[in-house]
Amino acid sequence: MDVHALVFDVFGTVVDWRTGVAREASRLLGDVVDAEAFADAWRGRYVPSMNRVRRGELPWTNLDELHRTSLDELLTEFWAPDTPSDVRAELVLAWHRLDPWPDSVEGLTRLKRQHVIATLSNGNVALLVDMAKHGGLPWDTVLSAELFRHYKPDAEAYLGAAQLLGLPPEQVLMVAAHIDDLAAARAAGLRTAYVHRPRESGDEAPPPPATDPAADLTVDSLTELAERLGA
Amino acid sequence: MDVHALVFDVFGTVVDWRTGVAREASRLLGDVVDAEAFADAWRGRYVPSMNRVRRGELPWTNLDELHRTSLDELLTEFWAPDTPSDVRAELVLAWHRLDPWPDSVEGLTRLKRQHVIATLSNGNVALLVDMAKHGGLPWDTVLSAELFRHYKPDAEAYLGAAQLLGLPPEQVLMVAAHIDDLAAARAAGLRTAYVHRPRESGDEAPPPPATDPAADLTVDSLTELAERLGA
Repeated sequence: MDVHALVFDVFGTVVDWRTGVAREASRLLGDVVDAEAFADAWRGRYVPSMNRVRRGELPWTNLDELHRTSLDELLTEFWAPDTPSDVRAELVLAWHRLDPWPDSVEGLTRLKRQHVIATLSNGNVALLVDMAKHGGLPWDTVLSAELFRHYKPDAEAYLGAAQLLGLPPEQVLMVAAHIDDLAAARAAGLRTAYVHRPRESGDEAPPPPATDPAADLTVDSLTELAERLGA
Repeated sequence: MDVHALVFDVFGTVVDWRTGVAREASRLLGDVVDAEAFADAWRGRYVPSMNRVRRGELPWTNLDELHRTSLDELLTEFWAPDTPSDVRAELVLAWHRLDPWPDSVEGLTRLKRQHVIATLSNGNVALLVDMAKHGGLPWDTVLSAELFRHYKPDAEAYLGAAQLLGLPPEQVLMVAAHIDDLAAARAAGLRTAYVHRPRESGDEAPPPPATDPAADLTVDSLTELAERLGA
């Protein structure tokens, strides 16, 4: 593969959103909620909330703002409607403080030696910058749906990333733990690598497919990706 | 100062464009041109070329493309009109390979411990990413006029940077070696730090002012900036 840059999905692919959100929910809301069920419910509103923007039902709204709206709905549903506004604001920042999977920092550090590495996430720029500092993620730069005002899987996000990196799409490798993200990247002309993250949704959820036969590569970690690319 | 993020002008402030461009001109064009005069002439077309975009005489055109147009004009003027297209393309990449000033990497590394550090340059994203890898500049992220389709000193560039970082303008410090860049940042509500770079335009050019009395800070290096900010 003649790949110059690697762009990464982040939530689930590079960081463990479920453990991090549950930890912050437990810290900030205490016993009011089942923290892991709360994390799952919040994440469950992620795609539907972006789809409202993608369909034009909402004007451009960044992920922090979508997270806040979903949170406000959820707190009512989970019977914690009295949660003060400052606690809600702090809880939205849980998504800025997610921990990397154990292999992420080493894998990215190795990949960075020979390639440009960037996020390509639906998270907003400030969220991704905070997360990189929190977890020591050594991105060359942060690319976000926010820059294109199009959430993945809109083609504009993938094509916009390649354009900003000054590369034809076929020299950019999209790395993700989600089949649909990779399918859309491939349709836009990017190369694709699937990362199998069996614990993304917890031990009790049905695991994701072990491989993506349509992808150029399937790996179990970012360190394995570095090995496969000779980095 | 309650400053959370620092955004940096790059050409002249963080890297030495004159030496780097002259070196590449000498390597690629040989004795055809006086390399330093050539660098000065190319840089001399920088502001006028951006102003054509800023005034709407040209649609959005990124800096690599403006550099190429200026280069084509200059080669004719400097009597090297036969320079092949691939050499011209390589010469445009001189701007991607500029060396940092001696204090830049240490200063940025120290500043990064306590602050978000980002470019805020008229260079395009690919140029800034390549330059960071070339020189080891440890940016948290790369912000560019290209993201806002407004060249500095348009207010949209400064305000757009603060917005992407999720901060009010007064929590962002613009760092630059150019008084006009700082004046525009200040008008947009940012804090400002002036870096005195007496050798930016070479030893024979009139030096820039030693201080900017309107700025919050004046320093002689990025290591001094780190000291002044307690980093």
